[in-house]
Amino acid sequence: MHDPAARNTGFPESERLARRLRTLVPGGAHAYSKTCDQWPATAPPVLTEGHGAWVWDADGHAYVDWFAGLSCVPLGHAHPAVTAAVTAALRRGTSFQLPAAAELAAAETFLDVVAGDEMVKFAKNASDAVDASLKLARYATGRLLVARCADHPFFSTGDWFIATTAASGGTLPHAAAHTLSFGYNDVPGIAALFAEHGGQVAAVICEPVRFTKPDLVFFAELRRLCSLHGTVLIFDETVTGMKYRLRGARTLTGVTPDLTIWGKGIANGLPLSALTGRRDLMSLADTTRPPAPGRPGLLMLSTTHGAETASLAAMTATVRTMADADVLTRTHAIGAELRHRIEQALAAAGMAEHLILAGYDCFLGLEARDTSGTPCPQLKTLFIQEIIRGGALFRGIFYPTYAHHGPHLDLTAAAAATAARSCARALDDGIEHHLARPVPRQIL
Amino acid sequence: MHDPAARNTGFPESERLARRLRTLVPGGAHAYSKTCDQWPATAPPVLTEGHGAWVWDADGHAYVDWFAGLSCVPLGHAHPAVTAAVTAALRRGTSFQLPAAAELAAAETFLDVVAGDEMVKFAKNASDAVDASLKLARYATGRLLVARCADHPFFSTGDWFIATTAASGGTLPHAAAHTLSFGYNDVPGIAALFAEHGGQVAAVICEPVRFTKPDLVFFAELRRLCSLHGTVLIFDETVTGMKYRLRGARTLTGVTPDLTIWGKGIANGLPLSALTGRRDLMSLADTTRPPAPGRPGLLMLSTTHGAETASLAAMTATVRTMADADVLTRTHAIGAELRHRIEQALAAAGMAEHLILAGYDCFLGLEARDTSGTPCPQLKTLFIQEIIRGGALFRGIFYPTYAHHGPHLDLTAAAAATAARSCARALDDGIEHHLARPVPRQIL
Repeated sequence: MHDPAARNTGFPESERLARRLRTLVPGGAHAYSKTCDQWPATAPPVLTEGHGAWVWDADGHAYVDWFAGLSCVPLGHAHPAVTAAVTAALRRGTSFQLPAAAELAAAETFLDVVAGDEMVKFAKNASDAVDASLKLARYATGRLLVARCADHPFFSTGDWFIATTAASGGTLPHAAAHTLSFGYNDVPGIAALFAEHGGQVAAVICEPVRFTKPDLVFFAELRRLCSLHGTVLIFDETVTGMKYRLRGARTLTGVTPDLTIWGKGIANGLPLSALTGRRDLMSLADTTRPPAPGRPGLLMLSTTHGAETASLAAMTATVRTMADADVLTRTHAIGAELRHRIEQALAAAGMAEHLILAGYDCFLGLEARDTSGTPCPQLKTLFIQEIIRGGALFRGIFYPTYAHHGPHLDLTAAAAATAARSCARALDDGIEHHLARPVPRQIL
Repeated sequence: MHDPAARNTGFPESERLARRLRTLVPGGAHAYSKTCDQWPATAPPVLTEGHGAWVWDADGHAYVDWFAGLSCVPLGHAHPAVTAAVTAALRRGTSFQLPAAAELAAAETFLDVVAGDEMVKFAKNASDAVDASLKLARYATGRLLVARCADHPFFSTGDWFIATTAASGGTLPHAAAHTLSFGYNDVPGIAALFAEHGGQVAAVICEPVRFTKPDLVFFAELRRLCSLHGTVLIFDETVTGMKYRLRGARTLTGVTPDLTIWGKGIANGLPLSALTGRRDLMSLADTTRPPAPGRPGLLMLSTTHGAETASLAAMTATVRTMADADVLTRTHAIGAELRHRIEQALAAAGMAEHLILAGYDCFLGLEARDTSGTPCPQLKTLFIQEIIRGGALFRGIFYPTYAHHGPHLDLTAAAAATAARSCARALDDGIEHHLARPVPRQIL
């Protein structure tokens, strides 16, 4: 199935397709994270298919996929239960001009198994759901300010967030004038934020966790301050939902948010996001109720394709499989073994202090430090370049899925060992000599 | 297959599902246009499936679907070629962390057969593509103002548009401060707009057509003024694309826009939208090129699910079928026959001056006028209520698809005749006595 040596033939067909893609699609990809400049030169320019934990490039080389479709396929690529459910939905029609029974089945399953919240609204992009949650919070509170965690890398394509980044081009002036920041686990920071702006903050949004563990004191204080000031507490579980715990990484924080955003892998590779939360808030978005006298109406979130049944069926099958097969227990165990074997490989190469796996077993982030202990993007890039050369498609985060098994671990551990030795040599003779492409530019 | 009398049993199961949906989803639907208050009481509360031109409600009643999934299924529900293409895509994986070969195939097909533009970016919602087009125009021109046609009902869920409507709740103050308006086919209006704001207008956006024919003089002048002032001309073909002409209703205007938005039915019920346009503009969104010195970067449009291959495969199959089978010639002929038979029914009931079909044969809008010739929403609602009772699921626009055939026309003509007679009686004895529910409230 997999022959690392085959990659030595290079990527003639992949490169041909990639060149053509770049002439037709800006940057050659539909997401900025997929463009070639975000990857080392050993990465395949174009993929053709995926099965389980494997993906293939257009030249026939196979890779163990460690970020599984931007972490969108928790069951692995082309999972039969999901394919069967979507095919059945396709045969009954996917798009209706009135509510469909499949919407109810999806809402019941998602709220029952995953979210445990009172109401849900499905959409296509997590950005839609994030922006809707802020709009809802502003409508509910009559306030303008929102505060987002500055330690989490991406919340939305909406201007309220993008205008705060280096990619602020094309946004209106003052688009982010009502966007505040705070630090993750920063108790004094959140206290200062509320001391200064308390009664004016409509919403606080953060991810419940990434690689750093949540400080329960911080979250208790955040929850207390939000409740005290009537601020809506929103957790963005786009990345974390259904990875750390089926009911979200929010269960690790000790507190319950008012609204939660879900996305990425909830439908195992079909496009779906969701906003869930408290009935008293979500009900404000019921357009069948006329707004209160003197108030404008609220169109929180409404999309033509928001309830197409193919993705809802994919989500329902995904969620049922994850619950019934106890998928997370298995993927966390795979992650623990992966961590153990990679740490062994790093230690054997004398790199244990330079290349470190951070975070939970379900979502392992690679950190790199140079000989002075300073974060070293060059070293990280070199490790990624070399582990991909060994057949593991990895770009900084290991995301174990239900499809990863022993052979994937064996290949990855071997590739990591070789990559670690390359990194050790490079620390001695200069990393830049070993990098075939510059370190990826931060776009945001 | 269809028994109109069966509808007399009412909707016990549909109503049970709808009640449950309303407890879990705000308004009981994921799009505001699907909520029960937007329909007369004869409409089924919940649908279960669709095949070809038929849809079924949860109580087993069949309807001829005249708006085909919010006009998203030009080939009819559950078209076998689309189902087969999507199923094949599902078996090869749908979500990848690098560009997929299927993206190239989709881009080539869409640009070759439909859009004829130089570059394309796919997304999920048309609102994403509309907002991206305005962001791109603002970035390209360095200007802030955008102007939208006030005669077209919906452009985006983005604040730049929603804040100009009655549903402005939750938007920031001044969100629409840079949004101007102009009238469709209004030559002096567009001249005045450019006379006042010319050098400051980043973009003009409108639909190329709805029910009123495009005035070629207006469009020639609009194109001339945009080119003269360096303003980006954007056509929103979300509704019109692949209906009036395969290459868009823009071909009816005599001019070529700089950017075009596509959505709704381009993937026959799977969720896909697209932004197409000139290379010099679209290329500004290439994130692999660092921004010019001193300029911020541009993240025009980037979504995790933007290139999932299930929807791209659905689009590719839809577009190929529409081209190869010359679908639009057939659907326009069906529309012409439908118009003829409904106008006959209206004339026979003496309603020809009160209920009028406007627009092109591919997208027929119903207009209602009372005895004084004034637009009459009550009469329109009554006709809709009664034609649905007769088995035609219709809400103001007839959208003929490739799946509509003689039997659907027969049923619809009979239902229209009965509805027209009911309307004639109601004009005499008071329409409001015949309406089981109030006229739908305008939400926007």
